[in-house]
Amino acid sequence: MMTTVATHPDYSNAALQSGLLPPRPELPSSRRIYLPVAGVPDLNVALREVTLGGDEPPLRLYDTAGPWGDPELQLDPRHGLPPLRQPWIAARGDCQQLVFSQQPSACQSLHEPPPQLAGPAPRRVARAGRRLTQLDYARAGIVTAEMAYVAARESLGGTAFSGEQVRAEVAAGRAIIPANINHPESEPMVIGRAFKVKVNANIGTSALSSTVAGEVDKLVWALHWGADTVMDLSTGRHIATTRDWILRNSPVPIGTVPIYEALERAGGRAEALNWPLFREVLIAQAEQGVDYMTIHAGVRRDHIALTHGRVTGIVSRGGALMAQWCLAHQQENFLYQHFADICAICARYDVSLSLGDGLRPGSVADANDAAQFAELATLGELTRLAWEDGVQVMIEGPGHVPLHLIAENMALQRQLCHDAPFYTLGPLTTDIAPGYDHISSAIGAARIAELGTAMLCYVTPKEHLGLPDRDDVKQGLIAYRIAAHAADLAKGHPAARSRDDALSRARFAFRWRDQFALSLDPLTAQAYHDATIPHEAGKSAPFCSMCGPKFCSMALSQQLRQAEPEVQP
Amino acid sequence: MMTTVATHPDYSNAALQSGLLPPRPELPSSRRIYLPVAGVPDLNVALREVTLGGDEPPLRLYDTAGPWGDPELQLDPRHGLPPLRQPWIAARGDCQQLVFSQQPSACQSLHEPPPQLAGPAPRRVARAGRRLTQLDYARAGIVTAEMAYVAARESLGGTAFSGEQVRAEVAAGRAIIPANINHPESEPMVIGRAFKVKVNANIGTSALSSTVAGEVDKLVWALHWGADTVMDLSTGRHIATTRDWILRNSPVPIGTVPIYEALERAGGRAEALNWPLFREVLIAQAEQGVDYMTIHAGVRRDHIALTHGRVTGIVSRGGALMAQWCLAHQQENFLYQHFADICAICARYDVSLSLGDGLRPGSVADANDAAQFAELATLGELTRLAWEDGVQVMIEGPGHVPLHLIAENMALQRQLCHDAPFYTLGPLTTDIAPGYDHISSAIGAARIAELGTAMLCYVTPKEHLGLPDRDDVKQGLIAYRIAAHAADLAKGHPAARSRDDALSRARFAFRWRDQFALSLDPLTAQAYHDATIPHEAGKSAPFCSMCGPKFCSMALSQQLRQAEPEVQP
Repeated sequence: MMTTVATHPDYSNAALQSGLLPPRPELPSSRRIYLPVAGVPDLNVALREVTLGGDEPPLRLYDTAGPWGDPELQLDPRHGLPPLRQPWIAARGDCQQLVFSQQPSACQSLHEPPPQLAGPAPRRVARAGRRLTQLDYARAGIVTAEMAYVAARESLGGTAFSGEQVRAEVAAGRAIIPANINHPESEPMVIGRAFKVKVNANIGTSALSSTVAGEVDKLVWALHWGADTVMDLSTGRHIATTRDWILRNSPVPIGTVPIYEALERAGGRAEALNWPLFREVLIAQAEQGVDYMTIHAGVRRDHIALTHGRVTGIVSRGGALMAQWCLAHQQENFLYQHFADICAICARYDVSLSLGDGLRPGSVADANDAAQFAELATLGELTRLAWEDGVQVMIEGPGHVPLHLIAENMALQRQLCHDAPFYTLGPLTTDIAPGYDHISSAIGAARIAELGTAMLCYVTPKEHLGLPDRDDVKQGLIAYRIAAHAADLAKGHPAARSRDDALSRARFAFRWRDQFALSLDPLTAQAYHDATIPHEAGKSAPFCSMCGPKFCSMALSQQLRQAEPEVQP
Repeated sequence: MMTTVATHPDYSNAALQSGLLPPRPELPSSRRIYLPVAGVPDLNVALREVTLGGDEPPLRLYDTAGPWGDPELQLDPRHGLPPLRQPWIAARGDCQQLVFSQQPSACQSLHEPPPQLAGPAPRRVARAGRRLTQLDYARAGIVTAEMAYVAARESLGGTAFSGEQVRAEVAAGRAIIPANINHPESEPMVIGRAFKVKVNANIGTSALSSTVAGEVDKLVWALHWGADTVMDLSTGRHIATTRDWILRNSPVPIGTVPIYEALERAGGRAEALNWPLFREVLIAQAEQGVDYMTIHAGVRRDHIALTHGRVTGIVSRGGALMAQWCLAHQQENFLYQHFADICAICARYDVSLSLGDGLRPGSVADANDAAQFAELATLGELTRLAWEDGVQVMIEGPGHVPLHLIAENMALQRQLCHDAPFYTLGPLTTDIAPGYDHISSAIGAARIAELGTAMLCYVTPKEHLGLPDRDDVKQGLIAYRIAAHAADLAKGHPAARSRDDALSRARFAFRWRDQFALSLDPLTAQAYHDATIPHEAGKSAPFCSMCGPKFCSMALSQQLRQAEPEVQP
């Protein structure tokens, strides 16, 4: 097996096809550790451990990199990651192997074949009449291996959360564990307001750019910068093949918007969409291992007229497609009509539903309007239906919302959607920052997460302007890790503040290397520091170029501490 | 006179000394306009007007660039900007010319002379026994030209604010107009919760880097990216000369922290500081034209012990210096002891006080602690004293504060400081983002401004790591313009939303050039768009590379609008 790591930007389809690993950043002072999960034999949770100086104990950090974060492992993207969850799934005995695997299909150009995986992954489905979702297990009082894993993971190997707590949150519908039985490569994670705020990164090809290898590269890159889930929003050619590479190489849940593939299969014409075609896509993606799917079933025919006075109309692709379909056929949204069928399919693979906000506002002018909230009420109805079928559900949220209207979104979502987890795109708090919408939206994201949103979909600097490249992916993720962590601190997540405190102690003690290692982006922090004090002595100097030696408040403050005995208040 | 504009990065001391203009960005579709101020003859307010397509009227924007934003003007940095306010100041008849100008002094190295201005600016002081602050005028019921100007400026030439409203806010101490009579080059601006949230940019040399020309360049650069005020925090050599160049070329109020220059004069030893030396610096800077000064008079001797259990001690340079002084001398802070003397001096030039938060928290662990709030209470006392002397006051705030503790800061500041304007540094909402603290703090800044903070001191990506360069200045400003605007929208500033709405209409209509022109950074927005669709046709294409032609929700939504007549809800 190859273990050579490619250097950016030479990660091509040819490199992928020859087993070359995608480029990964090297985080300093860090190593992969595996900690046992209390009460579950043979189960270890993967974490990152940062070694520190100055008599500090090593600090354990939540790690989304999966096997890609373990330099000891022999990996080959053609074979995919080891199927961590396979024994757990098999042990439950409620699924069966599919007789023949459904092959990736759809729109492959013959004259430019995409790279191919080493072989088809085994596909499973629930035994006849069985459901096998984490929600069903939770309701039955079963603490699954997945639940035990996320409890240990959220606790950083400690005991802050128990598997039973996780089970209770899942059983109540307040949390989900997206874990398709056909994506055994995934490390379990939980999305719910009681837990760490999660961040999703969107990747995927468009008709205008990117390659399969480029997306695998973005996936692995995103994992290292903290993506808790990844949505593959590919819309161009090789849509199924791209997704297969992503799934087989992803340790985090993968989400999709199946209507995109359905539209490709329908020749790009919204009016040619229909339930049988959509159903085919749904099953194909469920068999492939997609962990959660955005379904725009809340865009009801009657809601469309509510968008007519808007400044920016319908800005969700899926929402606009379904609205177009409703108008073309003068019928109710077929996803709404067939919602029970959708749930029945999802329950057989444990596909979680992400109920899409097809009518989300695309400008501050349209925030919190009748269209948005009418759809939200419908999503609440659908949530109950999905729960009846044992399907895990989260609710997608806006979009563009000025700061003073954010709290209403969160309050209404909780009320109308019965405390199902909220998963928001930002929201952007102003429309005037194209090129910087990772920032305009991180502000709204931090605020809405403080109020209870469970997962944030990142926005990159390229939002509204173009497809993100790998640096945009990184910029978006760092901004959103900041927002999520700020919310974790505000909510008092028991494992959140130790990192801030460790970094601040390092800062006060001028342990520069520890400061870098503990920061969200050690490489950039060090590069900025090196830009003005490149020599080695700067790494232990009791000042930086910001203030210089005489004006360093930390240095002054330390001198003060040494003078403490003199204080006579 | 030279009007050649230097190209980055060749703006050297030699370029400055030969009259070459500092590099400025060219903002597309924009021109400088001057609109008359209602009721005040010969008074025009400078704004930026953006020309738009698609039958849209031109949009007027607040403009901080001053004469630097008017390509028609013949400028020469050696001569400084035209003294806009000189006739207003003279007409009031309450000041006199100083007999001899105090020359810049302090620590100039003989073997490397800094560039020199063409000649000394005239220096003024209040006539004996007179006070001449905007606060005094406001209390006397006088709507000054400065007040009329800011009313027109905040209203973008319309009538949203009247001069009388501005006067009332200033008279109540809820707003300040920093306007030293020795800085007549400044265009009046107001800092108060009733008005647009303002942004301050810190620039200045440190002992380790930067030149006079480099700081003039950062000043002009900062103005173009929206700095409402600039603080010159220089601490190295040529400190007074650098400030002179900055003042003479700045159309925005300039703030300083005079203790820095005092420390240079004291040979860098905190214990050698004393009141006579500080007084000398204060008067020199007041005569030079500094509009507001940070004074760390709230760090009382008794407060120091309250910081002992902190993770990051005292992180304000001025605070740490004063604490060191108190301990060395076993005496009360001399700035507190001589606060009345400080006010008497400030009142003679209309120097506004920015009461420094020397004990602000430098980590989330230290937020909202006893030390911070003890000092805040002292700042409230000092506010009342300053007001008695007619001195305008604002209060500096933290620092590092997690999201859930921000509201308490704002509420206590209003209560303890009698509604004097709050001026905060961020706050940073987490400690773990060195390299990205413009983002971690923009989150806190937007939130605290939504709650009423009047001015935000930016934080650049280099915070904690090094001295910001011109790109860091820009990144910090854009992040903070986003935060400030998000707060303006949330507070319902009457002139705020028109820009969002105009941009969103342009977005929906695929007027790409208008989208770029209306954005906070048109150059970056266009560059990102060009990165994937560089050809001219892309500028009118009804899609971008993010979604491609088939999946563009805006395009789909427009088709939907055309189909509207068919809707039968």
